[in-house]
Amino acid sequence: MRLQKIFAHDVRGDDNRELLTECVRASLRQLRNFKRIELKSHVPNKAYFAFAGEKKISRAVNAALFVSDQKEWDKFCNALANNKLEGLSPESITKTIYSATISFCCFVDLIKDGDQKTPGTFFEYIIGHLFAWRLGVNPTNRLPVLNLDMDTTLPTDFVFNLGKDKPKFHLPIKTSTRERVIQVWAHQRVLDGVYGTGRFLGTPVILAETKTDQRKKEVIEICLPDQWRIYQMHIAQLKRIYYLDVPVSYDKLNAVFPPLYVKPFGQFFFELDSLTA
Amino acid sequence: MRLQKIFAHDVRGDDNRELLTECVRASLRQLRNFKRIELKSHVPNKAYFAFAGEKKISRAVNAALFVSDQKEWDKFCNALANNKLEGLSPESITKTIYSATISFCCFVDLIKDGDQKTPGTFFEYIIGHLFAWRLGVNPTNRLPVLNLDMDTTLPTDFVFNLGKDKPKFHLPIKTSTRERVIQVWAHQRVLDGVYGTGRFLGTPVILAETKTDQRKKEVIEICLPDQWRIYQMHIAQLKRIYYLDVPVSYDKLNAVFPPLYVKPFGQFFFELDSLTA
Repeated sequence: MRLQKIFAHDVRGDDNRELLTECVRASLRQLRNFKRIELKSHVPNKAYFAFAGEKKISRAVNAALFVSDQKEWDKFCNALANNKLEGLSPESITKTIYSATISFCCFVDLIKDGDQKTPGTFFEYIIGHLFAWRLGVNPTNRLPVLNLDMDTTLPTDFVFNLGKDKPKFHLPIKTSTRERVIQVWAHQRVLDGVYGTGRFLGTPVILAETKTDQRKKEVIEICLPDQWRIYQMHIAQLKRIYYLDVPVSYDKLNAVFPPLYVKPFGQFFFELDSLTA
Repeated sequence: MRLQKIFAHDVRGDDNRELLTECVRASLRQLRNFKRIELKSHVPNKAYFAFAGEKKISRAVNAALFVSDQKEWDKFCNALANNKLEGLSPESITKTIYSATISFCCFVDLIKDGDQKTPGTFFEYIIGHLFAWRLGVNPTNRLPVLNLDMDTTLPTDFVFNLGKDKPKFHLPIKTSTRERVIQVWAHQRVLDGVYGTGRFLGTPVILAETKTDQRKKEVIEICLPDQWRIYQMHIAQLKRIYYLDVPVSYDKLNAVFPPLYVKPFGQFFFELDSLTA
């Protein structure tokens, strides 16, 4: 609740990171009280487990990405505070952010019924804060539109303005996309149309595309790679699509036409200069 | 359940109309057991009521559009069966279809908890059937995409192919749109891109944009007219947007730039020739 209250005041501020840290710490601690059960994974080369409550299980957790040790998050936050990420690898950053997020989401899954909103909001906070930290500016989510006899504002996902003559970022944040993903391309198209193609770099950040069958204890990834290719060809061009848990069939899009770069989010921290070049 | 089973076999077929009629008849009959309560309408020049169950009330019903007499629906169906709509006005057709749909939706609101899917599916059936009847062809919801080294199919809303050298129709059907409406323009953009601009006429049909406050017994319309104008300018051009209960602030879009024709659905039955001209 405190995070909700202050988050927007200074998205990249240290206060947000402290409150995020409290949430992460509490989630990791609480999850120690729950058993882990292995899920039958239908995702090639990925193992998943879930935390089991009395009546239900949490969403799926990627076993190779999950680090239950609070120290990893603290180490990451220290590096952020000191502006020194060089000692960390993109892989370890991806794991740390994945673990922080998924532990909060799993805890909410276990203690609340059908609450999709709280995990989504938390994910927005954690990614919004980290993105703002990396760019060194705070985001907005309304843009002015001036078009002859039209004078209005356009509500958007987070957008970051790096200043005159520099590219701006368009940052949709979703825990999963499914068929709603077309919105991300459509919003990018609107930004291209209103402000000029290339002015905004579209870099959505998504948690995962897993779907867990509560009864069968199975996990699958729901992906629509052919549709993504069509959207990237015909609606707008996204610069990157970042995942915490990169889906297998989207990873393959890095190798086919049209150019569609799907990467683990940890890489963002090290490739910013090449994005804006 | 029978409707679900047979609907897709022959969308425009008489069997569908008979099953739709059974649903309409049962809904209107059941609703006679519920009291009507007036809602406080924040929509200019429109009065709304709701059907009241023991613990909750139904969605809002536009008093000026609702006809509780089954005979209106039967008369409409007779006209369809005999291919003679001339005796009916666009206004009366809009009212008849609105009443049939909203009575089914209200009945589901009262007997089920949080079920949005059943009303949405029923609305798809009724509009899909009527559109197919008017065009004289059945729809499909997959289109082949052939693009050099890409060979796949694109899932779509209903699309109607009137034959070689004739325009085709793209028919999204929604009980309300809110912020999800951008999907409709985005799908139109994909069709324009893949098959050529103008090949598909986008003609979404929407029930209403009302939102009812259960506790306060108030009704508002949620509309984003400025955003619609931006979408129509920058994503794609929709040919018509049909409503059963046309929202006040979308009606005004008929008079401003860009051209965005928002009409009561009854008019579709009489303007088809000018759409395809």
